[in-house]
Amino acid sequence: MTAAPVSATARPRHLLDFQDWSPERLTAILDNADTMLQVLDRPVKKVPALQGLTVCNAFFENSTRTRTSFELAARRMSADVLTFAAGSSSVSKGESLRDTVEVLTAYKVDAYIVRHHAAGAAHLVARYSGKPVINAGDGRRAHPTQALLDAYTVRQEFGSLEGKRVAIIGDVRHSRVARSNAELLPMLGAEVVLCGPATLLPSDLAALPGVTLTSDPKEAVRGAHAVMALRLQKERMGGGFLGSLQEYADTYQVNETLMAEAESGAIVLHPGPMNRDLEISGEAADGPRSRILQQVENGQAIRMSVLYHLLVGRD
Amino acid sequence: MTAAPVSATARPRHLLDFQDWSPERLTAILDNADTMLQVLDRPVKKVPALQGLTVCNAFFENSTRTRTSFELAARRMSADVLTFAAGSSSVSKGESLRDTVEVLTAYKVDAYIVRHHAAGAAHLVARYSGKPVINAGDGRRAHPTQALLDAYTVRQEFGSLEGKRVAIIGDVRHSRVARSNAELLPMLGAEVVLCGPATLLPSDLAALPGVTLTSDPKEAVRGAHAVMALRLQKERMGGGFLGSLQEYADTYQVNETLMAEAESGAIVLHPGPMNRDLEISGEAADGPRSRILQQVENGQAIRMSVLYHLLVGRD
Amino acid sequence: MTAAPVSATARPRHLLDFQDWSPERLTAILDNADTMLQVLDRPVKKVPALQGLTVCNAFFENSTRTRTSFELAARRMSADVLTFAAGSSSVSKGESLRDTVEVLTAYKVDAYIVRHHAAGAAHLVARYSGKPVINAGDGRRAHPTQALLDAYTVRQEFGSLEGKRVAIIGDVRHSRVARSNAELLPMLGAEVVLCGPATLLPSDLAALPGVTLTSDPKEAVRGAHAVMALRLQKERMGGGFLGSLQEYADTYQVNETLMAEAESGAIVLHPGPMNRDLEISGEAADGPRSRILQQVENGQAIRMSVLYHLLVGRD
Repeated sequence: MTAAPVSATARPRHLLDFQDWSPERLTAILDNADTMLQVLDRPVKKVPALQGLTVCNAFFENSTRTRTSFELAARRMSADVLTFAAGSSSVSKGESLRDTVEVLTAYKVDAYIVRHHAAGAAHLVARYSGKPVINAGDGRRAHPTQALLDAYTVRQEFGSLEGKRVAIIGDVRHSRVARSNAELLPMLGAEVVLCGPATLLPSDLAALPGVTLTSDPKEAVRGAHAVMALRLQKERMGGGFLGSLQEYADTYQVNETLMAEAESGAIVLHPGPMNRDLEISGEAADGPRSRILQQVENGQAIRMSVLYHLLVGRD
Repeated sequence: MTAAPVSATARPRHLLDFQDWSPERLTAILDNADTMLQVLDRPVKKVPALQGLTVCNAFFENSTRTRTSFELAARRMSADVLTFAAGSSSVSKGESLRDTVEVLTAYKVDAYIVRHHAAGAAHLVARYSGKPVINAGDGRRAHPTQALLDAYTVRQEFGSLEGKRVAIIGDVRHSRVARSNAELLPMLGAEVVLCGPATLLPSDLAALPGVTLTSDPKEAVRGAHAVMALRLQKERMGGGFLGSLQEYADTYQVNETLMAEAESGAIVLHPGPMNRDLEISGEAADGPRSRILQQVENGQAIRMSVLYHLLVGRD
Repeated sequence: MTAAPVSATARPRHLLDFQDWSPERLTAILDNADTMLQVLDRPVKKVPALQGLTVCNAFFENSTRTRTSFELAARRMSADVLTFAAGSSSVSKGESLRDTVEVLTAYKVDAYIVRHHAAGAAHLVARYSGKPVINAGDGRRAHPTQALLDAYTVRQEFGSLEGKRVAIIGDVRHSRVARSNAELLPMLGAEVVLCGPATLLPSDLAALPGVTLTSDPKEAVRGAHAVMALRLQKERMGGGFLGSLQEYADTYQVNETLMAEAESGAIVLHPGPMNRDLEISGEAADGPRSRILQQVENGQAIRMSVLYHLLVGRD
């Protein structure tokens, strides 16, 4: 493989956030996911695209779902997967992140998938390793494959993201999912409304093109084609951000009553895992509008597509 | 693959317990295990039967032995194995079992092996996933592959289960191993005697055909071809079920003295892990009657056979 | 495969320590690692040498680095890897080591890699399993693949170990790395100086040929071609072995000042993970003399070489 000259439209080497990405590249990822979804519908759900390559799943923060999704995606493409879980690692012996990253790079694997509680961790791995890195969530900053699978799920429903309105409701402040969606969806032609209690709504996000903020859930949902409930992390309650959980649910829960304000064909999304009857009602989670399990399936296709794009894709 | 019409003798899709199974089907599993045991004696212990398929090891309860046995069994047949361990999962974030199961099913794997502390968990996965499910232990209810490997070990010794007497001694009340054996062995022609302190001997099991209950270990062992000691879970001691451990060992320990009451060629079994010198003496565990390590080896062959039967077997 | 008659120069079946090994055999391992390092430089870093074989990574003590290194080594050679981690195992249910080992052997895997806090654990597995066993660290006794990779790194730098002087500085008493290096390096022609506070310097090691002891770091480093800083385990502080950490660092830290006493081309080694600015300065760890990341890469090549030698190598 020879490196192409770097240009404004060059293929990005990493998926850390969407800064280096063009709408065309992102659309190519979504298009390719269609193919991957077909692979997942075959009796034998495996292609040899990454045969002989080793992908390191470096999870410094617990996340069975995302880790599993990436592991399956890589294995579906015949890659070997090395799991590096922080709980049992040198990290707990007090080694610095940089030293751990340097050791990881000395393993000579072919790509890294990085989850870390600190913003910028995946960037650090990208800088030291010289290998493709996918950010699987860093602090509150970004979770780009989640945003891609959300975008893909909306596109799957409506054929296009152009002119679609997506309402994201909940603890926006602490959510890398909200932040990555707020960056991605407008690049693909959609409008994003971020909604939550004022204490959980960081005003800097209003500066993003195509993004508006509101604390009124009805206003947020009006005209929306998709409504995403964010997981409420109960451990946030101590920080003075919120009153009682009941109070939160009364106002911000995504349920049938709230969905009645949305477009008639609007769908319900949730990045999981759900606190049922807190940020989302059981009815909404299980009803005909819900695409929550479809998101899980799409996640695998999107991650296959991203791995393919970064490791073997050609223009 | 097209689904065969359901009939009384149809191939069961799952191994949850033995309700849907006929003696003929169960014997086919045991027969097939003979072939698998030969594979395990080869220099290269691997066959391509499940090439391209992914088996999910969903363990919501810790069990290195059973998990490892299934993982090896699946890999020996060239399947990919996805390990989903509850300790590091969304389960610990408070997600409901049903939601976790639904997410697991969205991963589109080809079969599930489920261990859970709640009775009925594997049934739930079977209902939602539409894929073959093997129960690897649910609460106190069932552990069918353990019973199959026990039956296989007895058959291996005596050529047949017909007319054989198997004594199972210990904490029958909390034992899914005892319960599954009590269901399975009589279906294959053997007689089962369940034995333990009266507080640990649930009377409903006496209703099963071919099963008798007694609190007298000598009576239980008399005429037995196989004597199985159950693991005594020390954490049960608090519930008022038992006096002291010493008292328990004095009466119910499987040792040379007790084995002297059994048939002359009788064998000793234990599902592991053992509390040596509590429910079983070191002598009995290591002596010439012991088939405890053979059980471990047979477990792999039985699990290969079950996976083969459910995933690719034809009539 | 037929077993060769045992002789003084017979190929050892295990790597438990260096007792059964000759300098010729050890040199063959190092030579073969050159080939393995070339494999790691290819785009597809995989050879089919161990295809169809299963290696069990039995780690009764936590060690992400060593476990990962062995796992990668085995997979690079196309072996299946079964991970048996004690944290989630029957060991935590109180089963004896011997019983666990016996169960492991009943899994019928093709080789064992054993890490255990008790000296002699790997020997136990070797005795019961009848399969090749590699000691990946047992108590304070031995960590032979670490010593081999250290030797390899020195040889890589200077072409040969003959007449080279290696200073090892730190908590020698509790270090299996120091002990294994003290056994191995003199067998290959190098001289070893062990250095640390008198309380951490066990006098019995002075009896080894080619090994000297000193509490004076400058004396240790004088004329050294390689200087290895040992990890200081902070949990040792309680035992009265050491004064303050600051005091330790003032005297024994491997840093630029100390390295000025060594040979002009001397290199810096550390088995990792590092306590930066305690046993080693950041400058020394990251400077041009450092071969610490090279050690990690070499570790993979050495472990591939050892696995190859024990599992398929021919004379």
